[in-house]
Amino acid sequence: MPSDLLAAVERYERAVVADDVTTLDEMFAPGPATLRGDDAGLLVGHDAIGAFRAGRGGVAPRVLDRLEARRLAADCWLVVAVSRYVGGGSGLQTQVWRRDDGRWVVVAAHVTPRPRTFDRSVWRVVGDPLVPGASAGPLAGLRVAVKDVVAVAGQRIGAGNPTWLAAAGLEPAHAPVVEALVAAGAELVGIARTDELAYSLAGDNVHHGTPPNPSAPGALPGGSSSGPASAVSLGQADLGLATDTAGSIRVPASYQGLWGLRTTHGRVSRTGVLPLAPSFDTVGWLTRDAASLLRTTQALLPDGVGVPGPLLLAVETLDEVDPAMRDAFLAAAEGLAVERVSVGALEPVAEAFRVVQGAEAWRAHGAWCTAHPAALGGAVARRFRAAADVTEDDERRARDTLAGHRAALRDLIGDGALVLPAAPGPAPSRSAGAAALDAVRTRLLRLTALAGAAGLPSVAVPWLATAAGPVGACLVGPAGSDVALVRRAAEIAPVPPPARGAR
Amino acid sequence: MPSDLLAAVERYERAVVADDVTTLDEMFAPGPATLRGDDAGLLVGHDAIGAFRAGRGGVAPRVLDRLEARRLAADCWLVVAVSRYVGGGSGLQTQVWRRDDGRWVVVAAHVTPRPRTFDRSVWRVVGDPLVPGASAGPLAGLRVAVKDVVAVAGQRIGAGNPTWLAAAGLEPAHAPVVEALVAAGAELVGIARTDELAYSLAGDNVHHGTPPNPSAPGALPGGSSSGPASAVSLGQADLGLATDTAGSIRVPASYQGLWGLRTTHGRVSRTGVLPLAPSFDTVGWLTRDAASLLRTTQALLPDGVGVPGPLLLAVETLDEVDPAMRDAFLAAAEGLAVERVSVGALEPVAEAFRVVQGAEAWRAHGAWCTAHPAALGGAVARRFRAAADVTEDDERRARDTLAGHRAALRDLIGDGALVLPAAPGPAPSRSAGAAALDAVRTRLLRLTALAGAAGLPSVAVPWLATAAGPVGACLVGPAGSDVALVRRAAEIAPVPPPARGAR
Repeated sequence: MPSDLLAAVERYERAVVADDVTTLDEMFAPGPATLRGDDAGLLVGHDAIGAFRAGRGGVAPRVLDRLEARRLAADCWLVVAVSRYVGGGSGLQTQVWRRDDGRWVVVAAHVTPRPRTFDRSVWRVVGDPLVPGASAGPLAGLRVAVKDVVAVAGQRIGAGNPTWLAAAGLEPAHAPVVEALVAAGAELVGIARTDELAYSLAGDNVHHGTPPNPSAPGALPGGSSSGPASAVSLGQADLGLATDTAGSIRVPASYQGLWGLRTTHGRVSRTGVLPLAPSFDTVGWLTRDAASLLRTTQALLPDGVGVPGPLLLAVETLDEVDPAMRDAFLAAAEGLAVERVSVGALEPVAEAFRVVQGAEAWRAHGAWCTAHPAALGGAVARRFRAAADVTEDDERRARDTLAGHRAALRDLIGDGALVLPAAPGPAPSRSAGAAALDAVRTRLLRLTALAGAAGLPSVAVPWLATAAGPVGACLVGPAGSDVALVRRAAEIAPVPPPARGAR
Repeated sequence: MPSDLLAAVERYERAVVADDVTTLDEMFAPGPATLRGDDAGLLVGHDAIGAFRAGRGGVAPRVLDRLEARRLAADCWLVVAVSRYVGGGSGLQTQVWRRDDGRWVVVAAHVTPRPRTFDRSVWRVVGDPLVPGASAGPLAGLRVAVKDVVAVAGQRIGAGNPTWLAAAGLEPAHAPVVEALVAAGAELVGIARTDELAYSLAGDNVHHGTPPNPSAPGALPGGSSSGPASAVSLGQADLGLATDTAGSIRVPASYQGLWGLRTTHGRVSRTGVLPLAPSFDTVGWLTRDAASLLRTTQALLPDGVGVPGPLLLAVETLDEVDPAMRDAFLAAAEGLAVERVSVGALEPVAEAFRVVQGAEAWRAHGAWCTAHPAALGGAVARRFRAAADVTEDDERRARDTLAGHRAALRDLIGDGALVLPAAPGPAPSRSAGAAALDAVRTRLLRLTALAGAAGLPSVAVPWLATAAGPVGACLVGPAGSDVALVRRAAEIAPVPPPARGAR
């Protein structure tokens, strides 16, 4: 290979190991055609690659162990390098180099880092399997990721926080919902990550990293059931067993193009499940497809109430979505002959929900937060500090508001189902700041609190495929209609978009 | 992109999904320059790629979700494709295509399959961590892979066999050696795979796949401590806690370029460790470097006997190694001013070892083998069938032979150490047949039985770097010299070869 190319390759490798982002940005060809891919997906364009690199934070120490170079054209070479890591393991890098104005630049790169044991942003413990299922049953073969707030016999509950985990004892028994899954034939793959104490909708975690969102590379996975959702998206589990207080199943489902069920409040036992705000806490599940969601719901719940009535589009919820998305959402909804209905102003319900949630969360975890003042990451810590300030008067007034909402919404829905966007838009970027995420959370709560405050079941359904990632819709049905609601959702969901295909 | 190239890419993808090896071989450019890499390493040359592909057995169902094409020269294109798997997850393929005589062929490919949860050929259960270490201690920070024959509290012992695992109960307590590691600050990453019932030296397993050998892609990892050894090679653990009856630590160490210690027989408690042949069973450990091996040995064992005496090269052992390797081994040994000594004929000792091992293995597991006649894979099942035929007379005669050997070898070694090859050559290919592997096993036992039959400690040291992979040497020291023997081995080991560097 030309000596100046070898020098460029070696300079590039030094910059990778030193995390010299400026040099790496210089050495990648400018423009929208440059490519960089790894197991998290493909980035297209110099700017997207630079943004990724700025947030990566370097690679483990390594040396080039082997270098293969092939001339493709006068000023274009393929370079394939095997890296040997100082701490064991090997990686592989493929690069296409081009000489532009006498300077070698990378026009495409494909990177395989050394194999990690497992993705600790997604999982805390995994096995083959961790817990086998009963030998027969309606869920035989279903692989389950259990959110790290639910008891698995012999394991700890980690709650997304290392301080919590370090003090946790071994759970003596499965939570009843886990026991039911295993008895129905499902096997447990492992225990998947959660946002800290499940008190977040973003899906990030400062302690063990943010799980990937395979449906929107570079975007947040959504939370707090981030690990189960990502595990299902990645195909590493078929079912995410999770919880939803303020949207913790519906939001990651929306962000990752999954199906998710928040069950009717109180219908699934919360024994062995870490509480956050018991007035709203529910157990539910996430899947890649409607059939698995229905099969699981039928295995765990009796048939219950039906949903024969009309579909009702909650018009105020459209004000909360990205303008660019509103028309697409409406167009998809109108294909279903929905009736438009008013659910009233959203913010008062969301605010009352936030107040009661805060009061209950502080009652559940305030003493622990006080005893471990530095244990929680930024946004969750701030949320608990705000929760500590909720007064009895605040809480009483908020509960009055919610009681009115609950009665009115149940009356409005009758034996039909409310239709609304699951989120204001696709998942925010992983590099979004705290203020931007707070603003998203405010808009999310206006959507999710509708069902949450009324104790009603809600199914999240993949709905729109935007350039920035998927967005879901939610159906909210009568109390106890969980099975029928999933069946109804499966009937009306748009056919998933086909593969984008060659282009 | 040219329409005939798109057609070629689509034909290629169809062939991948259909596992149409003939078409794939045709579509890769012939000759020694063609490249194919993934997370298991880089294959160079059309033939090596074809051999790999023949043994792979297809990929999971998937569709091309995105295709980026870049013209590199008149008849040379880069194609980068994102695959969406039907069962969830995405993969990435980078290909360089060239038009030769009007036909498009792949000259280089880099493949990233969808991320798997973890490598189930290496691990059965993993955690972050699975079991935390004590907060301080001489082994703080050391990450341990526990061979699946050693008790970890709350976990099962799987012994490399699904039938065994399915009937296993939860272990009530750590094995004492696990307890000692954890008390010294080491954390347990997980439970790593073993050859079935530890009765093999090859490292393959029909039930959950053969672990990779990162030091010799395409070759066997060595066994029976295959999982702990590969986990250490991959950098997914720093210490493999394992067992060695007939070479199960020394052989994978040799094949993977690792350090390994078989301890003095009886010096480390075997409580909580699945037996194979108690007269020879020992606990030991594998590391990537001498410092970690010494640190661990010092933490787990008292200083004991020293090894001040001469190094003794066991001349008969050179007859067992590949001729091409003999001179290199001798040259390395002669740099150490070793004395050549005769240890007598090797085969009688190996044969007596095999007989007593078989008798004891059948005593330990014969009832289970009889009750589960189809549970074991080919070579291990055959070995147990042979073990069932050992008579009392056979065993008594064999024990007499071993007693003589034991006394003579201990006398010969005195306060020095015997030096010998750890294996006849580098690791056999993963595609080697049963007869070839049986022949390797026969030669291996002639080397490993020397220490095993005498109950002496033996350290495996990385020694030679051949084109087909590493080969180790073993030092065998006096009983109880474990710590001193590791220290002596660290002093004499050749400096590891530098990175192969750019070429």
